[in-house]
Order: sequence, then structure tokens, then C-alpha cells
Amino acid sequence: MIKIGIYGATGYTGLELLKLLQRHPAAEIVWLTSENSAGQQFGDVFTVPPAIGKHALVASAAADLSAVDLVFCCLPHAVSLEPVARARAAGVKVIDLSADYRLKDPAIYEKTYNHAHTQRELLAQAVYGLPELHRAEIAGASLVANPGCYPTSVILGLAPLAHAGWLAGTVISDSKSGISGAGRSPSLKTHFVEANENVSPYNIGRVHRHLPEMEQELGNICKSANQQAGEWKIVFSPHLTPISRGMLSTIYVALPEDVSEAGVRAAYEAKYADEPLVYMLKPGQVATMGHTTNTNSCAIGLTFVPGTRTLIVTSSIDNLGKGASGAAVQNMNVMLGFAETTGLM
Amino acid sequence: MIKIGIYGATGYTGLELLKLLQRHPAAEIVWLTSENSAGQQFGDVFTVPPAIGKHALVASAAADLSAVDLVFCCLPHAVSLEPVARARAAGVKVIDLSADYRLKDPAIYEKTYNHAHTQRELLAQAVYGLPELHRAEIAGASLVANPGCYPTSVILGLAPLAHAGWLAGTVISDSKSGISGAGRSPSLKTHFVEANENVSPYNIGRVHRHLPEMEQELGNICKSANQQAGEWKIVFSPHLTPISRGMLSTIYVALPEDVSEAGVRAAYEAKYADEPLVYMLKPGQVATMGHTTNTNSCAIGLTFVPGTRTLIVTSSIDNLGKGASGAAVQNMNVMLGFAETTGLM
Amino acid sequence: MIKIGIYGATGYTGLELLKLLQRHPAAEIVWLTSENSAGQQFGDVFTVPPAIGKHALVASAAADLSAVDLVFCCLPHAVSLEPVARARAAGVKVIDLSADYRLKDPAIYEKTYNHAHTQRELLAQAVYGLPELHRAEIAGASLVANPGCYPTSVILGLAPLAHAGWLAGTVISDSKSGISGAGRSPSLKTHFVEANENVSPYNIGRVHRHLPEMEQELGNICKSANQQAGEWKIVFSPHLTPISRGMLSTIYVALPEDVSEAGVRAAYEAKYADEPLVYMLKPGQVATMGHTTNTNSCAIGLTFVPGTRTLIVTSSIDNLGKGASGAAVQNMNVMLGFAETTGLM
Amino acid sequence: MIKIGIYGATGYTGLELLKLLQRHPAAEIVWLTSENSAGQQFGDVFTVPPAIGKHALVASAAADLSAVDLVFCCLPHAVSLEPVARARAAGVKVIDLSADYRLKDPAIYEKTYNHAHTQRELLAQAVYGLPELHRAEIAGASLVANPGCYPTSVILGLAPLAHAGWLAGTVISDSKSGISGAGRSPSLKTHFVEANENVSPYNIGRVHRHLPEMEQELGNICKSANQQAGEWKIVFSPHLTPISRGMLSTIYVALPEDVSEAGVRAAYEAKYADEPLVYMLKPGQVATMGHTTNTNSCAIGLTFVPGTRTLIVTSSIDNLGKGASGAAVQNMNVMLGFAETTGLM
Repeated sequence: MIKIGIYGATGYTGLELLKLLQRHPAAEIVWLTSENSAGQQFGDVFTVPPAIGKHALVASAAADLSAVDLVFCCLPHAVSLEPVARARAAGVKVIDLSADYRLKDPAIYEKTYNHAHTQRELLAQAVYGLPELHRAEIAGASLVANPGCYPTSVILGLAPLAHAGWLAGTVISDSKSGISGAGRSPSLKTHFVEANENVSPYNIGRVHRHLPEMEQELGNICKSANQQAGEWKIVFSPHLTPISRGMLSTIYVALPEDVSEAGVRAAYEAKYADEPLVYMLKPGQVATMGHTTNTNSCAIGLTFVPGTRTLIVTSSIDNLGKGASGAAVQNMNVMLGFAETTGLM
Repeated sequence: MIKIGIYGATGYTGLELLKLLQRHPAAEIVWLTSENSAGQQFGDVFTVPPAIGKHALVASAAADLSAVDLVFCCLPHAVSLEPVARARAAGVKVIDLSADYRLKDPAIYEKTYNHAHTQRELLAQAVYGLPELHRAEIAGASLVANPGCYPTSVILGLAPLAHAGWLAGTVISDSKSGISGAGRSPSLKTHFVEANENVSPYNIGRVHRHLPEMEQELGNICKSANQQAGEWKIVFSPHLTPISRGMLSTIYVALPEDVSEAGVRAAYEAKYADEPLVYMLKPGQVATMGHTTNTNSCAIGLTFVPGTRTLIVTSSIDNLGKGASGAAVQNMNVMLGFAETTGLM
Repeated sequence: MIKIGIYGATGYTGLELLKLLQRHPAAEIVWLTSENSAGQQFGDVFTVPPAIGKHALVASAAADLSAVDLVFCCLPHAVSLEPVARARAAGVKVIDLSADYRLKDPAIYEKTYNHAHTQRELLAQAVYGLPELHRAEIAGASLVANPGCYPTSVILGLAPLAHAGWLAGTVISDSKSGISGAGRSPSLKTHFVEANENVSPYNIGRVHRHLPEMEQELGNICKSANQQAGEWKIVFSPHLTPISRGMLSTIYVALPEDVSEAGVRAAYEAKYADEPLVYMLKPGQVATMGHTTNTNSCAIGLTFVPGTRTLIVTSSIDNLGKGASGAAVQNMNVMLGFAETTGLM
Repeated sequence: MIKIGIYGATGYTGLELLKLLQRHPAAEIVWLTSENSAGQQFGDVFTVPPAIGKHALVASAAADLSAVDLVFCCLPHAVSLEPVARARAAGVKVIDLSADYRLKDPAIYEKTYNHAHTQRELLAQAVYGLPELHRAEIAGASLVANPGCYPTSVILGLAPLAHAGWLAGTVISDSKSGISGAGRSPSLKTHFVEANENVSPYNIGRVHRHLPEMEQELGNICKSANQQAGEWKIVFSPHLTPISRGMLSTIYVALPEDVSEAGVRAAYEAKYADEPLVYMLKPGQVATMGHTTNTNSCAIGLTFVPGTRTLIVTSSIDNLGKGASGAAVQNMNVMLGFAETTGLM
């Protein structure tokens, strides 16, 4: 059994992680931390059955790193930096669900998150935790930076085009998210009456915090396809929708002149044919949020607009599944040599 | 034109009031107060069209009582006590949407709200603002205490039985409310992900703050029917439902042996036949929230359970309409001699 | 008083129309038709207060055209053709909410709706009912074709650009609609469990039925700006969202090189400054569905993506308000010489 | 591996069953039937990942009973009668999710469902599939009648009182259900716009079809406690709420004079202490739908109303989990000797 600790367990990613790990045959929860709810049980914070609710919550200072093999860090960005470093210093493997170890260039991190990156050496060792792009590195990693939900839906939706060198011009991702993506801290934005019966674009047209992740990962792929920087850029428009969990990116790409519909479809099929948690929809089908709700999969549909060069990629994930905690367990499975979908199907 | 001020305009009852008054042919908004948003416009706080959004928000200290004829007070309980008194001292008529002037007995107020009642003389002058019970008094009043939403649905649902002296034993009101009833301050309870896909009983089995209002008003009616105190009591169970606005009380009453179905129905029809904002559903129909959403009416259905003495009263209001701001405008119309439904249909 | 009949009153546009007309000081409902519910009252079909529910439903064959001045036709496309013609033959003014009289070219109608256009002479007299584009013609018209909801949100969102001759290349409208836009006939698509907790693109990448309307109206404006056909095209992607009523179009436009942000904003401000039912949001604001829910207005926000030529127009309407029945009453007001927003604010 | 067939797989209980069985280590799906969708794949009917979607749908006439060990029957009531009989005649074990084999008295079945019971001999062999009441009989059964969702929430909520002989007078169950309980066939009742932003009582005050199940099972327990028939009766009021899946029964019981709060709590604790899928909430807690959403458990809270004899039992299940498909898998586990919660946690 793998002994597991979770930092910052009382948010939605912590809850989902606990539900997934409870089903995992080789995972044993050793401790859960919460600064605000230390001394309580998990069931005092969430309405969950006793099997999950019985776990005690402790302050992170009381979490014994020598008692665990692997730590999931579900703390907010910037707050994750130190606990991750402490866990690594204690020789514990780490999967960090924050943004703190995702961006390879600390200058971009600092500009994006407006916070100094205090762990640059560790950052160099971190692997971006998207197995569909970095499986081999994840298998050998001790620190994995779990991707953001928006980047997962966009990167998986565009990776086959990037590999083929077919990304060009302005790529538009009109993305829709459920409210759990905004976290559990109460705010006017997440108030039921404000979010219900509403669809709200937010942070559109600016450099959204998730954009550098997309550019880093898709940019790396493009380099391997000998595409110059600046040949393409992403306009990213997130929208809040009145849904608890789910995410859909509707992505608009202007295909190069010499690329055929069949060629594009073949590129996607080839890329994802053997992936256990990404699947292509049939021609004529579009991805909806419902394709992946309460799953750990990504569903992708391709629609070619007649009489134009426009390809519409619809990419659906559950923001708490393949967009966060499901991906974290997938990464754990890859790091520890379990079958990749253990506990995830 | 009647010149109007609103204290505490940036909650849901303030928003609804403003929408209703905008349609009212004789109402002119002079000022709106907000301590937190003073200096901003109403449209900076809510996503509303410019006709409503253009109004300035001022601190209550800057609100000129000499410039208005009537004030609506949308502040929380306990906070309303002083502003209402100041407005009355300035000779301004007041409709208070808080609980501060609803309970005739200050001792019950103080026990229920855990706060001293500092305006006992004024309390003696206040009229409980349910025109269906107190129309004549409201017409002559300078201070009207607008009823709570739950009490409105329950009192209107039971008043004809009380008048007839038919309330007896344990009356159960299983009430369901939309989330706007919980106010606009963000909390875990009103967080979209917590409230969505959920129905939650809360404060059941205890003396809910709204119970004394029901007992006071129904008790007064019963006294007129020569019913002793203690012959009936209400068990009141509020539930939060994933709805922005709406309220439904499903009320279970054990009818006395000698009362016929036809007699009960006749009593309700007689009581509400001439009421412009309460209507009886036909036999076989039950009230649903949908009957009154976005209206200022109350819809009542009667269902007799075969083979038992049980009457099920279904009573539906919009918690922001007849349950709050709609009732406040109805009271204004009665106080000022306008047709009672002006601006409300 | 204007005497009014409504054909096909038992859908959501009929319900909304009735609610709006009830508040209109000069409108008198004379008859409502329904083939399926003839003989019943409106209140047997919808949970509405008696003031609306009391109206009788008659078969269209029993609807006396000599008793009315104006008819709203809320029938489905193709079904509207004949009743509109009969009403016109009887000298009654008509506002048709179907698509039957919107497209000037009957060949495009027949291809789009797969149905012969049997009233070509009448079609020539019909005016497209968007007062913001055709106010003067509507004022003199006897037959007005009320626009579709999607076209309203997109045309109003792009008209100022078209006027200025700034539409170019591929314009993408990623549009989100509430479920009432799909009508009241039960289907799997509108089943609560299928639509709830879901966002679904549909009919994307094909020639959606609403696209020709957008092309006709924007194309006419462009011609006046001396733009050639083919210089721009719209990719239109409708999405179903779990909302009863509301519509948001997020529209992506690549601006010409020589156009400034200030110039674009000035063009929109100039176009809509005097419009009573279209309003521009301030710089930095984006339109959300919530801006227009339960209103008859259109709210428009402009966002310029730094470092690109991309303008994001967010255009919000209530699909049953400015997107259907609210626009129909606006058209009635213009046709009959009432103040344009009578009954609509 | 246990070879499994499912009759009527394309409803919500079939979908949920398939998801649960996919996780079950000993279950192998052999065939799924659908008369309407025969020839298609499951993924053509639901938006599910390929692991589930790949299953073929066949007409029931083509379903080979000799190839399976156990059949789940997810057909509507009355339609289940014959297929269950055929499966039993072929020696296949059956778990029937319809109402056809739940009521021991065929006369009550025929009156309740208005349909002749054509399989009376088989009915005599059927076991009511609530393991918390009939575990031993289920273990030896070949035909199990899976309980209805409403009866499960009410029976589990009242069984400890019935065992103790403490049921008396009029017991009121005000029950709230998600829309999936109404099935997948489109209807006005399940139309998104009708169900959303609404709470609707339905079939209240009449003998709801689920009432005889409650009376049969609770009556049998009461007999063992020497309670006479007629000493208690249930008033059952179901409500539709705008939720995809979930169920909450708020049950009001007048306790006998000589029963203490501690005694009642002890009776519940004793009854459910060892149950793997029923759990008691702590004093002060109430069950909400959220306690059991997407689980196969039942959560029960007890609230004693001060100053009265009223006990409020809050009983929460997921109507598709413990209320249908989860219970069916639990029954399968008991019948076949697997650990009872295999595949269910």
C-alpha cells in the first residue's frame, strides 16, 4: 500500500481526490491537512459518507512526512511553494495541483502570479503532468506539476495539430467551466443567485493566468515540428456556466491551405488511439460537457465548417476529473508503476 | 409623484424594489443608501440596464430625509431599528422589510433576535404589513412592518382555517425556499456548488426566527374565533432548494371531525374572493413554485387526503415578490391610497 | 384600445407576449388560438395567475379576424405562412414571430427551411422587425417579420462594424442560449436530466437556419458601406446551456489594421446612443446573460485583446425578451405610433 | 465472472447499472436490450466513454438467456412481467427493478397498477430486495424485486420505529425527488423550462403508487412488534425538484408518550450500526440530498422538536443509487455471495 498525505484537503480537488483514492486498491490515506479545520473530521466539512468522513484533519505543521510515500498538494498557488519543497526535502514524492511548478520559466511565473518563485532548483526538476505529452518523464519524476483544467482541455484539443505543424494565426478558445473551478471560498461570483441562470465571460482579452501554460506546452510541441514562435497565438475566453462540474472548450482554428479534413482526423486518431483517458468522437459528433461529467476522460470532437478553412475542436473534460484530481491519480499511477487507469474507470 | 428613499438598497430585496418602483407611475427614487458601495452607481453593483443602474448610492448619513415622503428600509434585523426611528422622527412614512417592527411583544423580539429592542414606543405604532389581514390599519399607518417571506406563505395558507376556529393539534409546514431568501452576502450555504443539486433542511425542529411571527398573527385570528392558546402549534421545517427565487409551503393540518371538505373550501373562497393578490386554485390543482415566480401573488391549493382528516394546503409565493418587495409596494399603495396593485401586475 | 389576437399562444413566446401585453396600457386581448388546447383556458396550460389564465383558447378556425386590429403569429415556421396571409387579406396588421417572412429571397427560405414559400407577394411587403435597423419602414408596415433570437444578438453586436465597413474575414460567433429557445414541445434535447449540468454545441459548422438572416441583414448594411460580398463570413456556433431564458453571443472579429480601439468604441456609441433598448457597457465590462434576463434590452460589451487585432463583442439578450416577444411588442409600438418602450421597461 | 444481461438498458437505471457493473470486478456484460435502439451501440444513445459506449443493443427477442447467469430487468411496470418469467423459466436469476414483483398481494398490485398480474406463482417466490430487512431471504433468492426509490427512503427512515412498535397515528412523509426519477421519456413534466426554477408537489393526497410498498413492508415489521393494523397510516407527498439525481424524505412522526429521545436514537443506532450502506448522522445534523448524491448509501438524521412529541426523520438517498441501480447491485452481491458493497463504494 502506498501511504498518502494531502495538503489542503478541504477544497473541491481534495474532496474529489479522496473519493478517487478510496476506490484505489493500493492507496492508503495517512493524513489530511487543513489550517482552518484542524481538529475536525473530514465529515464535519463535507456531507460525505463515514468511510470518507472519518478521516481526521490536522494542521500542516502536524503532518508527519516520514509516514507517507507520496503527497498531493491541493493548496492555492504561491502557498504550495514551501510545503512542496519540504516534502521533497524529506524524500517524499509530490504531485502539486497548484500552478507553482507548472511554468518552466520562473520569470513568466512571477509575472503571471505576481509572486516570487522561491524554489527555482526544484522547479527545474518538476515535470508537467500531462501523461499524453510527458508519460516517460512522469514515470521517472519525483515532483509532478498537475496541469490546470483549462490548459488540459485546450492542450489536448490542439496537440495533434501542433505535432503536425498545423497551428497558425489566431486560435480562439471559447471555454465554458462549471463553478467548482472557481474554488470553495465563498464570493459574489460563486453565489448561487449570481451564477444561476447566467453565463458570464470573465478575464477575456487579457493574459489569463492559464494562457502561459498553454503556450509553453503547445510551443514545445511546435518547436519539434520546426514551427517558429509567433506563427500562432491563442485568444482564450473563459466563461462561467451554472454547472457544478464540467468544462467544454470550443476551439476555432484556421487550417493551412494544404491540409485535408481526412489528414486532420488521421492525426488526431493516431495521437489518441492508444490513450486510455482521451477519446475521439465519431465524425458528425460534437463533444458536450455531458460526455465527461463524473469521469476522468477527455472527449474530443472535430467539426469542419464547409466552405471555409475553419476547424472547430470541441474538447470536454470534467474540471475535477481529467482537469484536476483524476489527472493527479493518473499521474500517481504512472509515477508508481500502476496500471494507468487504476481507480479511474 | 411620491419621493422615495431606500436604506440598504444593494441586497436582493433592494434590487427587486427598484425594479418594481421603476414601473410604478407615481414613484420617484430620490436616494439609495449603501455603506459599502457609497460613491458607486447601482449599476456597478448589479448587472442591470442603465435606467436602473444610473442611480447613485450614498452613505445613509448623506441621505436627506427632508427630500423624501416615504422610506423603504431593506437593512438586516437589529440594524433597522435606528434608521427607522430617525425617518419617523423626521415625519417620513416608513415600510421596514426587516423583522425589527413585526413582533408586538418586545420580549419575544429580544429572545428571538438576541438583541435589545431600543424603540418600544415606535413598535407600538407599527402595523404588520399583510393587507389581507390588516388593510384598514395599514391605510392609516405611518410605519409598516413588512412580513417575512416564510410567514407570508404560512399565514395566508392558514388564515381561513384560523378564522373559522379550525386550527387544531400539530400543524406541519414543510417549506421550500429559493436561495435569494438567504441574502446576498456570500457564504458556504449560498455557494453555487453547495446549493446546486441539493435540497437541505435547516433550522428544523428549533424555534426558527420566523415562527413567532406566524404564531402572533394566526394567534390573533384564533382569539377572534374564541380558540384558546395552546390548542394548536406549528412545526415549521424550512428547506433550501436550488432555485434563485420562489417559495412553496406544503402545510399539513388535521381537520376537526365536524368540518366538511366543502366547508373548508368555502371558507378559503370567501376569505380570498376579493383579494387582488391571493388566488385559490381549482379542486384537483396543487400550488407549485412556478405559479408565482416573478409575480407578486400568492397561489393556494387545497388537497384533502381520502380516508383521513388531513388537509394539505399548498401555498406558493415568490419570496422576493409577495414575500418581500412586492408586498412592500402593495403596502405603499395601501398607505398612500393608490390602487392596491399599481405597478404589481 | 388595440384589439389583439395571438395565433399559437401556448408556446413560450405566446406566454411571454401575454405577460407583456397585460401590462401594456393600450392592448386588449381578444382571442388566443391553440389547436391542441382549444376549449381550455390559458391557465389550464400554464401555471399563471387568473388575470392571464382566464383567457379562453380557441381553434384558429374560430378566431374572428374582424374583431381584431393586430395579430401576433407565434406558430412554427412553415405553419405561419397561411394564417399570416389570411390575416392580411382581412386587413389586419401582423407581427409574425416565425421565420416565414424574414428572408427576402424565397429561394434561400426554401433551401433553408425545406418548404415551399407559398406567399411570395406578401413576402415582398414584409419588413424585417429590428427597429434599430428598420424603424421607419416598420412604422409604415402592415406585416413585420420578427427576427430570430440568435440573429438579434449577432446583428446588433456587429451592425456598427458593418456600417463602418470594418467587417472582414472570418467572424466567429460562439453563442449560448437558454433552453426555452428550443420550444415547449418535449424532446430528449430539452429533457431536464439531459440539459442540466451540461453545455452542448449543436448544429455547429453547418448552415444553421439562423445564418441566412444574419447574412441578409449585415450584408445589406455592408453594401451601404461599399463592401463587396465575400469579404467576410460568419462561423456561427450555437450552444445549449442549462438556463431557462437568456442568450449570450461571444463574437470574435479581426479588425482591419487601420482601425483604432477608440474609433470602434465611438462607432458603437454613436449607433446606439439614442436606442431605448440597446445599451453599451463601459470599457472593461463584458456582457453576461444576467445583464438582460427578464428584460427587453440588449447589452453590448467591447473587449480588445492586447497585442492582437481581435475584438471580442459580447452581446446579451433575453431570448424571450428582445429575442422574441419583447421585440414583437416593440414592433407593435412602432407600427401603431406608441412610445417605443410602452409596456417594456 | 458472472455473465449479465440487462432488459431495457436505455433508461437512467440502465445507464447507472452499466456504470456500476463496469467497476465490479466479477461482472461481465453479455447483452443489453432495447426495442427502440436495437442495432445501435449504447454510446449512440448516451454520451458515455467508449468503455461503456461500445456495448451493442439488441432486441429482447435476440437476447440469449442461455448465455447469462443473471438478468437485471429495467423495463416499466407491467412490461416486466413476461421477460422476468422467461428468464426464470430458463433458470436465470433475476433482479427486477420494476414494481411488478414487489407487492405480495396481487389484488393490491392490480388495483394500484391497473393491470392484471399474470405471474402469480412467480410472485410468491419473489423477495423484496431491501437487504436491511430481508438479507437472508435475498441470499437464497432467484428472483428479487428491487424496491422503489421513494419506498426505500421512507422504509429505511421508519423501520427502527416500526420494529420498536412506536409507529402511531398519521405519519407524514414530505418527499423531494430529482427529475431522473420520472424516467427518460420526454414529457412536459420533465421539460427543462417547466422543471427548472420550480418545486412541484404531484399526486399528493391520493394513493400514490408507491404507498402500498411502504405499507406492506412497514406493516410486516409492525406485526412482529404486535401492532394492530390501522394504528398508523402514512400521508405521502412527493415533490419534483430541479435536480438531476437525489431524494430526500422529511418524515414527521408523533412519538408515543413513553418514548424518550435517547431511546429512539438507540433504536436507530442498533438497527443500522452494522449496515454497510445506511448510516446515522450525529445529533444536531440533518440529512440533505448532498449527503448521498452519486453514492449508494442512505443517510438518516433524527431531529426532535422541543416541546412536542414530534420526531422529524430526514432520510436521503440517491434515487439512482440506493434508490435503484446501486440497490440492484447490492442485491446481486448478496444473491451471489460477494462482499455486499463490491463495486459500490
